[in-house]
Amino acid sequence: MMNAQPLQEDGALEERMFALGARARAAAVTVRNAAPEARTAALVAMGERLREAAPAILAANREDVARAKDLAPSFVDRLRLDEARLEGVARAVEEIAGIPDPVGAVAGAWTRPNGLRFERVRTPIGVIGIIFESRPNVAADAGALALRAGNAVILRGGSDSAASVAAIGTALRLGLQDAGLPEDAIQIVPTTDRAAVGLMLGGLGGAIDVIVPRGGKSLVERVQAEARVPVFAHLEGICHAYVHAGADPKKAVAITLNGKMRRVSVCGATETLLIDRAIAPVLLPSIAAALTEAGCSLRGDEEARGLAPMKAAAEEGDWRTEYLAPILSVRVVPGLEDAIAHIATYGSAHTDTIITEDKAAAEEFLRRVDSAIVLHNASTQFADGGEFGFGGEIGIATGRLHARGPVGAEQLTIFKYVVRGDGQIRP
Amino acid sequence: MMNAQPLQEDGALEERMFALGARARAAAVTVRNAAPEARTAALVAMGERLREAAPAILAANREDVARAKDLAPSFVDRLRLDEARLEGVARAVEEIAGIPDPVGAVAGAWTRPNGLRFERVRTPIGVIGIIFESRPNVAADAGALALRAGNAVILRGGSDSAASVAAIGTALRLGLQDAGLPEDAIQIVPTTDRAAVGLMLGGLGGAIDVIVPRGGKSLVERVQAEARVPVFAHLEGICHAYVHAGADPKKAVAITLNGKMRRVSVCGATETLLIDRAIAPVLLPSIAAALTEAGCSLRGDEEARGLAPMKAAAEEGDWRTEYLAPILSVRVVPGLEDAIAHIATYGSAHTDTIITEDKAAAEEFLRRVDSAIVLHNASTQFADGGEFGFGGEIGIATGRLHARGPVGAEQLTIFKYVVRGDGQIRP
Repeated sequence: MMNAQPLQEDGALEERMFALGARARAAAVTVRNAAPEARTAALVAMGERLREAAPAILAANREDVARAKDLAPSFVDRLRLDEARLEGVARAVEEIAGIPDPVGAVAGAWTRPNGLRFERVRTPIGVIGIIFESRPNVAADAGALALRAGNAVILRGGSDSAASVAAIGTALRLGLQDAGLPEDAIQIVPTTDRAAVGLMLGGLGGAIDVIVPRGGKSLVERVQAEARVPVFAHLEGICHAYVHAGADPKKAVAITLNGKMRRVSVCGATETLLIDRAIAPVLLPSIAAALTEAGCSLRGDEEARGLAPMKAAAEEGDWRTEYLAPILSVRVVPGLEDAIAHIATYGSAHTDTIITEDKAAAEEFLRRVDSAIVLHNASTQFADGGEFGFGGEIGIATGRLHARGPVGAEQLTIFKYVVRGDGQIRP
Repeated sequence: MMNAQPLQEDGALEERMFALGARARAAAVTVRNAAPEARTAALVAMGERLREAAPAILAANREDVARAKDLAPSFVDRLRLDEARLEGVARAVEEIAGIPDPVGAVAGAWTRPNGLRFERVRTPIGVIGIIFESRPNVAADAGALALRAGNAVILRGGSDSAASVAAIGTALRLGLQDAGLPEDAIQIVPTTDRAAVGLMLGGLGGAIDVIVPRGGKSLVERVQAEARVPVFAHLEGICHAYVHAGADPKKAVAITLNGKMRRVSVCGATETLLIDRAIAPVLLPSIAAALTEAGCSLRGDEEARGLAPMKAAAEEGDWRTEYLAPILSVRVVPGLEDAIAHIATYGSAHTDTIITEDKAAAEEFLRRVDSAIVLHNASTQFADGGEFGFGGEIGIATGRLHARGPVGAEQLTIFKYVVRGDGQIRP
């Protein structure tokens, strides 16, 4: 097992990180070639080992929390584990054990006139580097999901959660051993030295295939700026609810309220309400009242403020802001075209919904808004791998390659082509 | 229309390149939202415009060839166009018009217990930057394939082919206009200034979603080292033919000979022959004789050289070399495990084939060799988008994300999730 001790010398750090990468790469081959049952057994065993290790993990977590006592309460809250939270972590890992194993699944098959039979077969990506911040449960979630898809992982948590993550990592690695899989398939970076992150972003000499940053905007931006390997990045969720003239009033109120206020700190929270001029006079007052009553602070454009009481005027910057707080910007628009244009200009291509009973308008919106997730008559808070039926997610991708939206086990695979012939040569 | 004139001032270059990127980004939205028929019509019109412009394109090409007269004959041959080659270029574009339009295709659909209906719908990547070397036909091939998938492209050819590429670009842009699509969906970088490549690798302020380098190893390495946006890279094809103990002798000779010698300069050419010790004494002499007679120079390990006459001894470096020439390295291996291990150590995860009548051995090879393309009883030269039935390819990807193997129209798309509800809110 590894210790969370800082390494002092740069040369030693680089050497140790590269060795760690090489062990992950070797383990990735074993994990990829193992039977699906072995991966499932490891995930089940990890859940058991997490429960068994609860006293050790909670003791480690108390150390972390004690060290963090001067930090913001919200930060400490994310860091803190208790028995109930840890039980949730163990159960999440067991749920991931129940996700169908994607490795070897045939995603397409066809035969060519020359008799060659083609299959497109899912195969693990390889080694996934995960760089995360304060929540120690990410180590278990992300490690388990990566393993479900046949990958090895290198996990690097924030220095504030180092003891917790090390203890969780020990339990996960014991679970791998229980199932006869190499414990090196889950590596915890054994140092809080920030230079280790830089080395991971360099790919550890080809050992890392993709980096997944999980944390705030500054972490993601640093990773995107410095990474020399591909990144699954989720930058921000500036999500819109667009109330079209043909909206059902009850649905409009319920979906806007839920989209904003169910949880304000998630990336799928609604940040801007767009509402058609034709319906705003009759509908905006009740939407605004419901939101205000729920504790939401509204920032409207001039027309919106003329229709309902609002806390403040929306400025240009508001349309570009992911509040992650009980604040909603509100804009009255002339119609569908303008709503689509607003989203294209100010949105982050994450999640956007239209509320209307007009099917043609809904289909136009769904077709033309090019966000990772577009919804009709449903809350933006459904932007979540669990709600999609993926059984878990490692994050929500807003890039334009490989994966978009919730990144579940299937999105942690790539494919290869298997071609079966009987002696074909190319003319 | 654009001119292929170098821009003198750095500030002016950056400004002009960013403006070009912004125009491509705007055109990408129009192209994405256009009807599939409009994209098809544009491709058909491009073919016609290429034929119509033949005199102008061939005149431009003569200028390029005249300027390149002191370069290597093989380089000048790749650069040169004639009527037959240009007709081939036009026909390739028309064939791409016949590929099913992937935009809007539903790649998956499911319903959740709460009634939400999910669809995974293909959508264009956006703006693709293509950096290529001497062959001017890449401008037409790559531009057409990107458009088939609803993307805009920014094309940057080598300075030696600037006049040819500019003339081809003019024809392609006229084809877009003919179909009522914005000509800015195909942009030819109007300068031979190398700094333009650096600007493209920086993404032109977010205007470029992915870079595709098409050229030699040094170009691909530069792009991978410098790019700040994702890259579809094809580094090299160190492809293996493995003759297993259970191989049919005729197939073994035919597939090895075809894999190596059909065309030695393609990335799918076989570079190393692995042969089982059990069958090498009876089979290697005839394989070696067929190859030698076809003009191939063999470099064998000691055991191989003891069984058949070979030109040279294979050294460690040979196993890592993509010859792209009539040279083949040959190694005798104890069996399947060793063949798989050799490929894992020295291969480039591009294309590898096993020749055997033993189905279990074949399946083991197909499962465990984690290359983009694995074949059984077929030539490695089938590594080609056309042979896969893709109707064209923009290259062969050897990375681990998004696309692997031939990159056809479908691989030039990403997906979004379309979610239809009737008022669902998240509990």
